[in-house]
Amino acid sequence: MAKKAPRRTAERILESSLALFNRFGEPNVSTTAIAADLHISAGNLYYHYPAKDEIVNALFARYDEALSGLLHAGADVQDVEDAWFFMHTLFELIWQYRFFYRDLNNLLSCNRRLEEQFPVLLQAKTAAMHDLLQALRRRGALQMEPADAMQPTATSMVVVLTYWLSFEYVRAPRQALEPESAQAALLHGARHVLGLLMPYLEPTQRAHLARLVGAYDQAT
Amino acid sequence: MAKKAPRRTAERILESSLALFNRFGEPNVSTTAIAADLHISAGNLYYHYPAKDEIVNALFARYDEALSGLLHAGADVQDVEDAWFFMHTLFELIWQYRFFYRDLNNLLSCNRRLEEQFPVLLQAKTAAMHDLLQALRRRGALQMEPADAMQPTATSMVVVLTYWLSFEYVRAPRQALEPESAQAALLHGARHVLGLLMPYLEPTQRAHLARLVGAYDQAT
Repeated sequence: MAKKAPRRTAERILESSLALFNRFGEPNVSTTAIAADLHISAGNLYYHYPAKDEIVNALFARYDEALSGLLHAGADVQDVEDAWFFMHTLFELIWQYRFFYRDLNNLLSCNRRLEEQFPVLLQAKTAAMHDLLQALRRRGALQMEPADAMQPTATSMVVVLTYWLSFEYVRAPRQALEPESAQAALLHGARHVLGLLMPYLEPTQRAHLARLVGAYDQAT
Repeated sequence: MAKKAPRRTAERILESSLALFNRFGEPNVSTTAIAADLHISAGNLYYHYPAKDEIVNALFARYDEALSGLLHAGADVQDVEDAWFFMHTLFELIWQYRFFYRDLNNLLSCNRRLEEQFPVLLQAKTAAMHDLLQALRRRGALQMEPADAMQPTATSMVVVLTYWLSFEYVRAPRQALEPESAQAALLHGARHVLGLLMPYLEPTQRAHLARLVGAYDQAT
């Protein structure tokens, strides 16, 4: 049997770490546990990642890249159907990397790179929400005065988007972040972020969003 | 000099712990550090609180009691001026116990009592926001269809209320939870929670809230 290339091992370490961090929380997963999960030696793991923070940082780099790619789509949203799809895709990506959100402040206080990069990421999210609002407004779907409501609404959307999974976790610590809760958590989250726009929507669009939300209410 | 009564020491331990937890985060403060801060022996501290979790639980009991007393006032709100004052008072209390919000999920995963009690507290907050919306609606200040918007709006208000300080912390980890940032953090928080009601307010009330918010924007 051919020996596995180092590149492949580094990749497997990231995949296994992500699964374990998501399942148990990053502070509760040691590098020893990751090595054991992969049936490799601690030495082999350290050869690729000399410290757990380097695994966390490598995962953050991937998340950040995927998120940046996605956030650009905020400006292309044409109606509430697009916005609904956009929000779901965003929540799906957050769900894939949910360990960041489960222990965010703890991670920030222990990891200098995250402390620097997460504020930048929140700014990018806020800018994307702002773009989404402007795009909907330009198409006549949204009736919102930019001077009064756009910036605080974009900020509140980011707070709900960022902390929705934490909120679900507090409500049900033992179930909320398990895979079988994914679908409900993502739908609840998207529904609440877009719910903030409901009163500002042009009537046809509002009815359309209510139908999308209604279909979800029946499904959960 | 008279020897201090045990009751007084127990009280001082709670006060010192609260200050240290707020300043450095609960996971970063040991019972040894608390004893050192008070110039008492570790033995004396253990006599009053045999484990750090018991200090955390005693502080939670105080917070829970103060919060429950306050939340009842949600139903008595008559206009946006009352709502603004209510939200400030709520944020001031959250600020006093901000360490819970800084490391909430971490605390929940390590402390069984908090894991049980925090969901109850979130429910009480959601019920209070719902009461506040109903009170404003009864007075004609709010134009909101209960069937469509009241429950999700109350829930989103609780998410913004609960995670506002975490959000400020991510944006500026080294400044956000320091005492000199209190005033700005509380005003920003109250402004964003009540901002969610803006589009639903009766026009005179909306103008009144905009004036209150405007006075704040100039002050920060």
